[in-house]
Amino acid sequence: MTKLKNDTFLRALLRQPTEYTPIWMMRQAGRYLPEYNRTRERAGDFMSLCKNPDLATEVTLQPLTRFPLDAAILFSDILTIPDAMGLGLYFSQGEGPKFERPLRDEWEIRDLAVPDPNVHLRYVMDAVTQIRKALDNEVPLIGFSGSPWTLACYMVEGGSSSDFTLIKTMLYSRPDLLHHILDINARAVTAYLNAQVEAGAQALMIFDSWGGALSHAAYHEFSLAYLEKIMGGLIREKEGARIPCIVFTKGGGLWLKSIAAIGCDAIGLDWTMDIGEARRLVGDKVALQGNLDPAVLFSNPDIIRSEAGKVLASYGQGSGHVFNLGHGISQFTPPEHAAALVEAVHDLSRAYHE
Amino acid sequence: MTKLKNDTFLRALLRQPTEYTPIWMMRQAGRYLPEYNRTRERAGDFMSLCKNPDLATEVTLQPLTRFPLDAAILFSDILTIPDAMGLGLYFSQGEGPKFERPLRDEWEIRDLAVPDPNVHLRYVMDAVTQIRKALDNEVPLIGFSGSPWTLACYMVEGGSSSDFTLIKTMLYSRPDLLHHILDINARAVTAYLNAQVEAGAQALMIFDSWGGALSHAAYHEFSLAYLEKIMGGLIREKEGARIPCIVFTKGGGLWLKSIAAIGCDAIGLDWTMDIGEARRLVGDKVALQGNLDPAVLFSNPDIIRSEAGKVLASYGQGSGHVFNLGHGISQFTPPEHAAALVEAVHDLSRAYHE
Repeated sequence: MTKLKNDTFLRALLRQPTEYTPIWMMRQAGRYLPEYNRTRERAGDFMSLCKNPDLATEVTLQPLTRFPLDAAILFSDILTIPDAMGLGLYFSQGEGPKFERPLRDEWEIRDLAVPDPNVHLRYVMDAVTQIRKALDNEVPLIGFSGSPWTLACYMVEGGSSSDFTLIKTMLYSRPDLLHHILDINARAVTAYLNAQVEAGAQALMIFDSWGGALSHAAYHEFSLAYLEKIMGGLIREKEGARIPCIVFTKGGGLWLKSIAAIGCDAIGLDWTMDIGEARRLVGDKVALQGNLDPAVLFSNPDIIRSEAGKVLASYGQGSGHVFNLGHGISQFTPPEHAAALVEAVHDLSRAYHE
Repeated sequence: MTKLKNDTFLRALLRQPTEYTPIWMMRQAGRYLPEYNRTRERAGDFMSLCKNPDLATEVTLQPLTRFPLDAAILFSDILTIPDAMGLGLYFSQGEGPKFERPLRDEWEIRDLAVPDPNVHLRYVMDAVTQIRKALDNEVPLIGFSGSPWTLACYMVEGGSSSDFTLIKTMLYSRPDLLHHILDINARAVTAYLNAQVEAGAQALMIFDSWGGALSHAAYHEFSLAYLEKIMGGLIREKEGARIPCIVFTKGGGLWLKSIAAIGCDAIGLDWTMDIGEARRLVGDKVALQGNLDPAVLFSNPDIIRSEAGKVLASYGQGSGHVFNLGHGISQFTPPEHAAALVEAVHDLSRAYHE
């Protein structure tokens, strides 16, 4: 393996010294970039873009051409696994992801099987390999997956939901059925992430987008327990290099201490938590990734610089911080505001690494 | 003033001894009750129901006829204040509340004025007086309002929002304008709640439904500071009786210690926080209201009883707990499940008050 030209991101995740605070942005390859929209148009639709390794590589690299970001993230969707299970993922205009065949009957749930990532998700692995090649060791590549609970939400509800009526009815009335889905999902996520590592991913992230919809007790039983199971099954080292894993539960600020204990290397924070307080809570157990409110990017470069400075100051001196937004970058963000953020973080953070 | 026949709710809010844990449910007069739907149909639409004191009284009392609840809550909407400011509140089918004239220009914001509650919101005061009379001192009546920040969200966005693009752009780019709106709103909420007390409300609740969308710093500056201002201006005693005030920030679990310090009597909790942990955090500064996941009511009476028991056990021995859901009761709840909850709480809680 050739040495990475910029491994700041990986060192920060492992809480090793760095010269500045690395930054990448969730959904950095996305609709706020005109070049992304052009590629997507060529692809036809979102899933065709995900399933075409050439085009997925193209869009993954687009933000890196514009901004000196410290990591690339595989362009894909969090719902590829249930799609590979046969649920039929599609995107309807303005309504987000949907499944043609959501889980409605017990037999459908009992029939679920762990897909072989190298067969049913071959297109993802091909994209990883091709992106790694195209990156030419400039910056590390992050692989990712949705969490077992978040995948289950979509699989049962059939799409986005505001109140999670169906899956929560299952959670309280038929916890055995939900545990069955989550167990399959956890094994599928483990296999999927490991295949991404084999194909070239140098760090991993798990998006638990809907963990925050659960009660305290239900979060621990129906989301965190399965994240912990995954941690136990992941490839953590390859060719002598640690493969760090980041866990991001949106709305999970109340549970940071529990999340820090499952064996992940870093925790992603949404913008509701003060990152300095989060650091005091988790101590030196894990690194932290986050957590600027993405809405700050609607303002202007001066305010962006000042707000980014507040996040850096709150984290304080030393390594262990990967700068990011607290959620995906909005499609309405002017790209030059994203540029201002990257510049501000690189510039202002040097003072915290002396 | 005649003595209340059941003042358990008020005593619990003041952390005085009670024989059992009182319970009421957010949105207890609502669409899950067939009799409510019939009255609403007679009224024509939701706002006509709110604006007719006879019908508002009728629906306020409906859940109390069915269940032995320990408090009634005024039937109204959180957005009556901006409606009285002239923004034109209406409800479009399936999309929730909207404003015909949201705040778009600086002059509209500079033109905002505090409405006189006894003139522009007379229909609310009439409903309060009439409901108090109809209640005949059986249980106390709760008056309420939206928080300054939550009102501002709707006033600027023009309706519900998933990402609060417009108001957050204002927050970061023109904080002076947003502070102007919030200052007007805080004065309007204070006058509105005081008028409700004069008309007969015996406890107050402020719904900060969107506080949880803010960053840690922004929550303190743009929501909590104005809640604190309101606390300083409220009538806290009437005819020798304390008028307790409950503050409910949905998604505010991270900020309980700050909320407990603003001078409210109780904090409403959503279902994501463990209520026992919340109690340890706030100590004996305030009472706590909450916090069963409303989705538990989709299960069955046995599970409802067991889940309610867990909340009671987590809070533990002693007074200072008002049982409630962590959010409004869903329209899809079978009424007999609500009955099972009320019975379970009354029954199981006696052991914690011996």
